[in-house]
Amino acid sequence: MNTNTQQSLEKDQKIAQEALRKAYTRETQALIAEINQKASQITDINAIWALSDYLNSQRYNIEGKYDCRESTSVFVLAQLVKEKWLTIDELSDLTPSTRAKVAALAKMS
Amino acid sequence: MNTNTQQSLEKDQKIAQEALRKAYTRETQALIAEINQKASQITDINAIWALSDYLNSQRYNIEGKYDCRESTSVFVLAQLVKEKWLTIDELSDLTPSTRAKVAALAKMS
Repeated sequence: MNTNTQQSLEKDQKIAQEALRKAYTRETQALIAEINQKASQITDINAIWALSDYLNSQRYNIEGKYDCRESTSVFVLAQLVKEKWLTIDELSDLTPSTRAKVAALAKMS
Repeated sequence: MNTNTQQSLEKDQKIAQEALRKAYTRETQALIAEINQKASQITDINAIWALSDYLNSQRYNIEGKYDCRESTSVFVLAQLVKEKWLTIDELSDLTPSTRAKVAALAKMS
C-alpha cells in the first residue's frame, strides 16, 4: 500500500466515524423524542408492554448497527443514507471511490 | 369434603379472585403513571435503555405474580398485602382460617 492510499484510507475512516457519530445522535434523539411523546399518552398496561417490546427491538437494531468494528464500512454508511439518518452530501469528503460505493449501495433495495 | 367446607372454599376463591383483580389494577395503574411521568423527562439514550430494562423486569414480575393457577393461593395474597397493593381489611370476607394464614405470611420477611 503506498502512502497516498494509506492517507486516503485514514481520511475515509475519520470521515466515516464522524458521520456515524452524527447519525447515531440523530437516530437516538429521534427515539428519545418519540418515547417522550408516546409514553405520556399511555393509559393501558398492554400499551406499556407494547412499548417495552418496541424498546427491546430498537435497542437491538441501534446497538447492532453502530457497533461496527470496521468503522469505514460502506455498508453501514449506505444503510444510514437509505434510512435518511445521513445524506450522501454529508459524505462528500470521502474519497470518490468510497463515496460512489456508498451511493450505489444506498440505492439498492 | 362436606358441603360447608366446599362452600367456604368456593367463597374464598371468589373473594381471592376479586382481590387479585383489584391489586392488579392498582399495581398496573401505578406503573402506567410512573412510566408516563418518567419517560417524559428522559433526555439521554442510556436512560431510555434503563427504562427498557425496568419495563422488562416489571413485566416479568407482574405477569408472574398474577398468573396464579390456584387463585386462592394464600401466598400471592400475602405478598400483595406485604407490598401494600391490598390491605388485610379488604380480605375480611375470607374464611377466618384462610385470612389468618394470609395475615401471618404477610408479616414474614
